[in-house]
Amino acid sequence: MNQPVYNFGAGPAMLPPAVLEQVQAELLDWHGRGISVMEMSHRGADYMQIIAEAEQDLRDLMNIPENYKVLFLQGGATLQFAMVPINLLRGHHKASYVQTGIWSEKALNEARRFAEVEVSASNADRQARLVPPQSEWQVSKDTAYVHIAGNETIGGVEFDFVPELGDIPLVSDASSHILSRPVDVSRFGLIYAGAQKNIGPAGLTLVIVREDLLGQAPANTPTMLDYAVQAKEGSMHNTPPTFAIYMAGLVFKWLKKTGGLQAMAERNARKAELLYQSIDGSAGFYTNPIEPRNRSWMNVPFTLKNANLDKVFLQEAELQHLLQLKGHRLLGGMRASIYNAMPETGVQALVDFMRDFARKHN
Amino acid sequence: MNQPVYNFGAGPAMLPPAVLEQVQAELLDWHGRGISVMEMSHRGADYMQIIAEAEQDLRDLMNIPENYKVLFLQGGATLQFAMVPINLLRGHHKASYVQTGIWSEKALNEARRFAEVEVSASNADRQARLVPPQSEWQVSKDTAYVHIAGNETIGGVEFDFVPELGDIPLVSDASSHILSRPVDVSRFGLIYAGAQKNIGPAGLTLVIVREDLLGQAPANTPTMLDYAVQAKEGSMHNTPPTFAIYMAGLVFKWLKKTGGLQAMAERNARKAELLYQSIDGSAGFYTNPIEPRNRSWMNVPFTLKNANLDKVFLQEAELQHLLQLKGHRLLGGMRASIYNAMPETGVQALVDFMRDFARKHN
Repeated sequence: MNQPVYNFGAGPAMLPPAVLEQVQAELLDWHGRGISVMEMSHRGADYMQIIAEAEQDLRDLMNIPENYKVLFLQGGATLQFAMVPINLLRGHHKASYVQTGIWSEKALNEARRFAEVEVSASNADRQARLVPPQSEWQVSKDTAYVHIAGNETIGGVEFDFVPELGDIPLVSDASSHILSRPVDVSRFGLIYAGAQKNIGPAGLTLVIVREDLLGQAPANTPTMLDYAVQAKEGSMHNTPPTFAIYMAGLVFKWLKKTGGLQAMAERNARKAELLYQSIDGSAGFYTNPIEPRNRSWMNVPFTLKNANLDKVFLQEAELQHLLQLKGHRLLGGMRASIYNAMPETGVQALVDFMRDFARKHN
Repeated sequence: MNQPVYNFGAGPAMLPPAVLEQVQAELLDWHGRGISVMEMSHRGADYMQIIAEAEQDLRDLMNIPENYKVLFLQGGATLQFAMVPINLLRGHHKASYVQTGIWSEKALNEARRFAEVEVSASNADRQARLVPPQSEWQVSKDTAYVHIAGNETIGGVEFDFVPELGDIPLVSDASSHILSRPVDVSRFGLIYAGAQKNIGPAGLTLVIVREDLLGQAPANTPTMLDYAVQAKEGSMHNTPPTFAIYMAGLVFKWLKKTGGLQAMAERNARKAELLYQSIDGSAGFYTNPIEPRNRSWMNVPFTLKNANLDKVFLQEAELQHLLQLKGHRLLGGMRASIYNAMPETGVQALVDFMRDFARKHN
């Protein structure tokens, strides 16, 4: 295709073209070895270097303190919804959850299988339009941890602050905004993320966990679900998803090369501002209902005043090579996911299209 | 490289070159859509067709009966070591395991976290050189299932029969020999396999399970570990490892195109015969200790009479582009894994090299 394609899918999502091109170039023969990365022993010297570099590059990018382990796991954020309580209850009965949308609700529902769940705050009474300020939160002193979804991929609600919880570990599902801006990892007990938004292909889950929280999973925990085992064995208790980790490593190198997380944050801020301004300036043709301070930089849901135009909006967008703009099946409408790999030109193309579409159909 | 490369690694293993070439060709733009398979929504029409075709092609190849579910999961065979007892105990306390080597031992050790494990037979007293005949097995009537490792990847021991257990479900870890020959799926309650030998890249686990065995996992089972949930949601309780499933689908199409499992079995039999004859005919220069009837078609461990030659054997093999022949760290020596993707020319090249090496160093 000659005209560039911009993929606004929420995940599996657009990957950096430079990364995909490198993957393609070395797919059959990695660095002259005559075999694909996919065909390498995970315990061979070449692959051990690939995974070690991936970890080190991530540590550099996020400035991860030495007392945190980096784990490359499988099963997506959904398996973390179980692994977090299994591993982090540490003898407590209670775990606290802040409900800000569909994903944090899924997390707390899964946790009920293992813990007494305290919903410390919720935005359900406010149409999920904001993150409840910490002054509203009710957190019991005897809770094992507090869980948040740092960015709600479906609702488009993002935390504008890092909660301050004293000695209680803070756990964040960062699936859809990890690596989008600098973050102080030391403020968290555990951060997890499915790869298929800002990290790499689906089938890889990243966990960053403070090491003093490890080692207290119950005896009947499946070995693969015990963070301590995975930490001790360098994510190689068994064969890891080698190709997905290799690709994540290339994404990390791409992030370093393009200026790291501070430069990425500046691009992401400009992209989000451009798109939200276009929505707010449409005289109601498009609407995003989220409180401005909690508008996600990554996932921008919006509706058309006239929902009868949804279908033609999607059709005309696709003709302009603006793909996967359909909203989540639970919310309807549209959603533009503008992750790290989406260039500013892609957001500009979307904004131009939206303006022309509004003019034509107003 | 001009001279062909033959990769004898045990897994992640050699993939069919035709499949890798197709993956490379369509990596940036799948069927003119302008995006990679990795960038597609797993719930979009294109991807839904990819996964549906993969399942149907596998059903065709293995002649899977309609009352069996096919699941595309994550976590490798090692996670199945836990998921099998969690899901299949169904109120029983006891589960039976046949010990034929390192992998079946790992499986039974993990099962001890969830069940009273009965070791129904073991070859440990015979240096793991054979599969104990079923006449030796002690299987309690009140056991939940009997678990075998159909092929021991490290030891190179393969079942030469399908056990007959009446109403007791038979469970097989088929990771390293699935799709290597026709098998009567209806004789099994459950078959599982990590992908990285005969199916596709690491990070995908295949489960084939009789549907009447589902739905009795305990209430505190992590949702992702409940076969019934995965079956009901078509392996899409959350985002599956989309790229690995796509590649598995291409491998299934390659198998169909090259004659299906009967033709593959004939090629695999010839490959194994050629290699074992070369070992047995080396006048003791090379040795494989396994009982002939239980010699694996897929994994051929062998030792050199003079272990001091191991290093130079591996070096000279590599110069001939015969890669990853080093034996498993637990056994030492050599191992040639000759999975489906290894052509007969590759085994011939290995046999020629071994003959020349023996002549030179005898």
